[in-house]
Amino acid sequence: MALLRSYVGGHWHTPTAEGAPLHDAVTGEEIARISSAGIDMAAALDHGRRTGGPALRELTFHQRAALLKTLALHLTEHKDELYALSARTGATQRDSLIDVDGGIGVLFAYSGKGRREMPNAKVYVEGAVEPLGKGGTFLGRHILTPLHGVAVQINAFNFPVWGPLEKFAPAFVAGVPSLIKPASQTAYLTARLVELIVESGILPEGSVQLVCGSAGDLLDHLTPQDLVAFTGSASTAQRLRTHEAVVRHAVRFNAEADSLNCSILGPDARPGTPEFDLYVKQLVTEMTAKAGQKCTAIRRALVPAELIDDVAAATAERLAKVVIGNPANPDVRMGALAGLEQREEVRRSLKALTAAGQVVFGDPERVEVVDADPERGAFLSPVLLRADPDRAEPHEVEAFGPVATLLPYDSAEHAVELAARGHGSLVGSVVTGDAEFAASVVLGVAPWHGRVLVLDTDDARESTGHGSPLPPLVHGGPGRAGGGEEMGGIRAVLHHMQRTAVQASPKVLAAITGQWAAGAPRREDVHPFRKTLAELRVGDAVVAGPREVTQADIDHFAEFTGDTFYAHTDPDAAAANPLFGGIVAHGYLVVSFAAGLFVSPEPGPVLANYGLENLRFVTPVYPGDALTVTLTCKQITPRENADYGEVRWDAEVTKQDGTIAAQYDVLTLVAKA
Amino acid sequence: MALLRSYVGGHWHTPTAEGAPLHDAVTGEEIARISSAGIDMAAALDHGRRTGGPALRELTFHQRAALLKTLALHLTEHKDELYALSARTGATQRDSLIDVDGGIGVLFAYSGKGRREMPNAKVYVEGAVEPLGKGGTFLGRHILTPLHGVAVQINAFNFPVWGPLEKFAPAFVAGVPSLIKPASQTAYLTARLVELIVESGILPEGSVQLVCGSAGDLLDHLTPQDLVAFTGSASTAQRLRTHEAVVRHAVRFNAEADSLNCSILGPDARPGTPEFDLYVKQLVTEMTAKAGQKCTAIRRALVPAELIDDVAAATAERLAKVVIGNPANPDVRMGALAGLEQREEVRRSLKALTAAGQVVFGDPERVEVVDADPERGAFLSPVLLRADPDRAEPHEVEAFGPVATLLPYDSAEHAVELAARGHGSLVGSVVTGDAEFAASVVLGVAPWHGRVLVLDTDDARESTGHGSPLPPLVHGGPGRAGGGEEMGGIRAVLHHMQRTAVQASPKVLAAITGQWAAGAPRREDVHPFRKTLAELRVGDAVVAGPREVTQADIDHFAEFTGDTFYAHTDPDAAAANPLFGGIVAHGYLVVSFAAGLFVSPEPGPVLANYGLENLRFVTPVYPGDALTVTLTCKQITPRENADYGEVRWDAEVTKQDGTIAAQYDVLTLVAKA
Repeated sequence: MALLRSYVGGHWHTPTAEGAPLHDAVTGEEIARISSAGIDMAAALDHGRRTGGPALRELTFHQRAALLKTLALHLTEHKDELYALSARTGATQRDSLIDVDGGIGVLFAYSGKGRREMPNAKVYVEGAVEPLGKGGTFLGRHILTPLHGVAVQINAFNFPVWGPLEKFAPAFVAGVPSLIKPASQTAYLTARLVELIVESGILPEGSVQLVCGSAGDLLDHLTPQDLVAFTGSASTAQRLRTHEAVVRHAVRFNAEADSLNCSILGPDARPGTPEFDLYVKQLVTEMTAKAGQKCTAIRRALVPAELIDDVAAATAERLAKVVIGNPANPDVRMGALAGLEQREEVRRSLKALTAAGQVVFGDPERVEVVDADPERGAFLSPVLLRADPDRAEPHEVEAFGPVATLLPYDSAEHAVELAARGHGSLVGSVVTGDAEFAASVVLGVAPWHGRVLVLDTDDARESTGHGSPLPPLVHGGPGRAGGGEEMGGIRAVLHHMQRTAVQASPKVLAAITGQWAAGAPRREDVHPFRKTLAELRVGDAVVAGPREVTQADIDHFAEFTGDTFYAHTDPDAAAANPLFGGIVAHGYLVVSFAAGLFVSPEPGPVLANYGLENLRFVTPVYPGDALTVTLTCKQITPRENADYGEVRWDAEVTKQDGTIAAQYDVLTLVAKA
Repeated sequence: MALLRSYVGGHWHTPTAEGAPLHDAVTGEEIARISSAGIDMAAALDHGRRTGGPALRELTFHQRAALLKTLALHLTEHKDELYALSARTGATQRDSLIDVDGGIGVLFAYSGKGRREMPNAKVYVEGAVEPLGKGGTFLGRHILTPLHGVAVQINAFNFPVWGPLEKFAPAFVAGVPSLIKPASQTAYLTARLVELIVESGILPEGSVQLVCGSAGDLLDHLTPQDLVAFTGSASTAQRLRTHEAVVRHAVRFNAEADSLNCSILGPDARPGTPEFDLYVKQLVTEMTAKAGQKCTAIRRALVPAELIDDVAAATAERLAKVVIGNPANPDVRMGALAGLEQREEVRRSLKALTAAGQVVFGDPERVEVVDADPERGAFLSPVLLRADPDRAEPHEVEAFGPVATLLPYDSAEHAVELAARGHGSLVGSVVTGDAEFAASVVLGVAPWHGRVLVLDTDDARESTGHGSPLPPLVHGGPGRAGGGEEMGGIRAVLHHMQRTAVQASPKVLAAITGQWAAGAPRREDVHPFRKTLAELRVGDAVVAGPREVTQADIDHFAEFTGDTFYAHTDPDAAAANPLFGGIVAHGYLVVSFAAGLFVSPEPGPVLANYGLENLRFVTPVYPGDALTVTLTCKQITPRENADYGEVRWDAEVTKQDGTIAAQYDVLTLVAKA
């Protein structure tokens, strides 16, 4: 039988031991054997640190993002192969879409986020310049640089493709190499995924490694620059979190653990309303997708006490229609659990839950299946329970399978209290047509949740559902859910980087961040609009003016634009305005005149002004004031796949006495050559 | 002798045991006794959760920020009392300024940040709206809500005022009650501080509690909604981090631990340069301020090998002039350590360090002092060492007193490597006149540092120095420094809140966040400029237009403003522009016309347009295009201490075919009534 190989130190490693068998979830057949015997874990980490890290740090965020997209396109071409292996984990085609397409989708999403929301640079500059002294000679700013370690990613068995990819993508954009350790049960699928990645040659060597089998002494070799990201059970999370090396080195440890997620039905959503149907449909979907093996699945269905019989009946009716069996059969809606051990574990949990409540639907010991042997394959009937919400078990015992418990509640406050009894969840949902009920429940449960979905007729068509974490949104929850945060847009990229507060003079700060800061030297030689992106330097500036703003200008601008706001046109009313005390020029007039001063009109490398940011009219401009503008190149962002780039300019408009009239950033596109 | 009281459960608690003695650091006299005997820790936490938390959550961020300022003003009036007690901890007047004024300064800083950078609301909305579907009916956004627990703040002995206040301020602004546990040695000063706070009656009951003495079983009663912030030794941080309840509930644990901070002298800074003098002066300051008892003090002085003799001589010369003794004597530059035990501990560390290097200045066993008994008071000479940088001890052994070690380096790369051997530091500094050297070293050491200061002649006058954490900047470092982050502006406020990704339809999202989102209902009745802040509602809108933009308008605008950029004036050149293909209207013309359309000119509640944000010119406007503008009230921020507030409007300018020409936020001030 095939021995799963690991990819460490730049080589495919075949285990030096016989390994443990891995079985097809549907047929029970042995698929492969797994062992990490013979892997030098310290050397693997070192390879990531010495080869992968430096290679990644040579690239900018945009360059890494571009590689991610190339990789996503490559994997898209090999989806069928991944689907075929995915079916052997018990997954239906719909389940495989979540896992395989969902995983590839995360790569696309981080590629886009990296290009749109990060600079084309190696350092990420965060937040505003903080003035640290009144004279402007001492400034502070935060930068983020990639950690020089390895992101050790310990994944769960339920998403063998999505799990590794959603951890890898942000690490990669950050410039930190990944070491992927899949859960054994479904490691054969992750192993094939990593083979596809490595064989493609798209990524720098050392940026991805794979350890199939036990982690051995891997964690013993961690240093303060490494990270650990874990998905799995709360108990394993606790064990890893207290590992001696993790604690000693304050290793960044991110856990995403199963939680007892709830879904709350609004009291308005009575039978016959579309929200009632949405609730029942979503509950059944969450119970049966991936055979309920999702850390985000609904475990606690909180419904108004007066509606619980209706919900129970409608859900049972729908569950009865779910066809279970071999995922290869197109009629099958729910496949097998990942293995017989998983089924035994779910049955154990079900014992505790049935002791605390009654079964509304399903038999934990018996299930009808199509095209499969119900005993050799890890099949289990969906089980819907109903329990007293004051019992502890429904809030504490998780059956990691197609299992949920109906719990009645009395009032919105009661629903919030019950939700909190999960002691921290990845996700909750509220299904209601009442926006006020939704707002009050969402704000009530928010402190216990990493994500909350409100489902109603407005968003139902586009909703991705209770159970789907999405790349732009935080995935993770407090307390029992592990206290971590994955994804959430570039938050997850920054998690792999060290935030450092830099204190320096404007000149030095500009040299460190690559961005001009007020007080840093300016260079006024050739008009900067005459310089190509290649020639332009941060600090290149033009000073233009003065131009007087006359009463006639203001009158004319008011008439021309139609902006006859009283502060520009009515001397008495303007005098009564507490902020002005007299006629003032339109802010739009000030910035228009400023542009008239700073542009260099002839055709040249500047292609367009595509926007403005952070415009503040600092002091009013009165008739007779004369304006001078200083435009300084602040930040240059070449685009990887275009013959132009973005240039951000600092614009400062001052009056004859030096006071600042307006301050803003001008955004332009400038040709590279 | 006085027994220090604790403030728990809304009452001052006197210990039910005799307690351990606390001694004056200068005279050895007993000052007070300390014990937490008799405190019901579970009840104290519960009091914070049930009384403090709900009271704080009734307030908005701005209201809490205002209370913080009132408190800061109150404490300012009582500074002298705090100074007097501070002197008994061994602190000179200059040391007390750092501790007392520094602590009060954090309150002022968080009051300002809270008002300027947070909404006047109870929910913090973070980041942009994330569209989750193409139809715009399903949106995502992150909100932050206060955790419903208590922030347990375990402080170090060295900053008995600043330490508690810098942890309390962000927790308070977040809406989370604090439980302050000072280190015993100097708890009498913290106790007086908390007395002043409680007696003032400024804060809601339950928002601050104090436990003097051992923490007992405090941590056993933590829940997933509580937080722990710890400052102290790396070993204690490790013990607390692995506390069973902390781990089980994934309690947010922030550690700020002593670290082996370095200061790097640039090779350009030869004797005779101002940077050489700045380096030596800063090194001596860091060794002697608070008698070197600062987690941020310089422990490793990295200097070019060829300059080490000069630095050693100059530093020794300066150290020889430091007058040590009773802080009450105005000539005294360095006071006592916090106690005799601290001195013993420093001497023990010095044994390890002297084994690895040689003493350049000072005698660990002998010191001359003024106005004090060198044996009864915890006095210690500053000790400057010099060692081989390849030895382990200088990078690993911290003597938490007036002790630093000179280490020679060969190249910038070597300096970076040596810096990293601290395995993570709170702060590093670079002293150089060479901006390129500074940039390369800062970027090199950044992954190992929470803060880096570059000192040069430009910023020297305003620099607050290597050792001073500042409220706007992150304080904390990776690895040995504990891996935490304190302060850093509102980052620390958000640390006390749960981030929740909300997914909903635009209408529901607006109800939850209090901010209008594209797709949410608009109300077009009275022109919104005619509504006072009290009358205005999020979603109030005006639609105005169309107005055609003619070639004549563009020509005229170019002539009037002077903005004759070729894309607006030269048909051939404009046609050659890859983005336009012909003459386009000025972006400034588009927004000026839009304002002409949306304003309601008569005097009314709208006082001023004070800025614009996020302006994007989405598609070009050509001659003949007709513009329509929709202005929608997006966010309302009443000011606590003014008769007006800020209103943010969503502005969308569309063309006759519905495509978006420009999109931006208009910022106005609107009268409350």
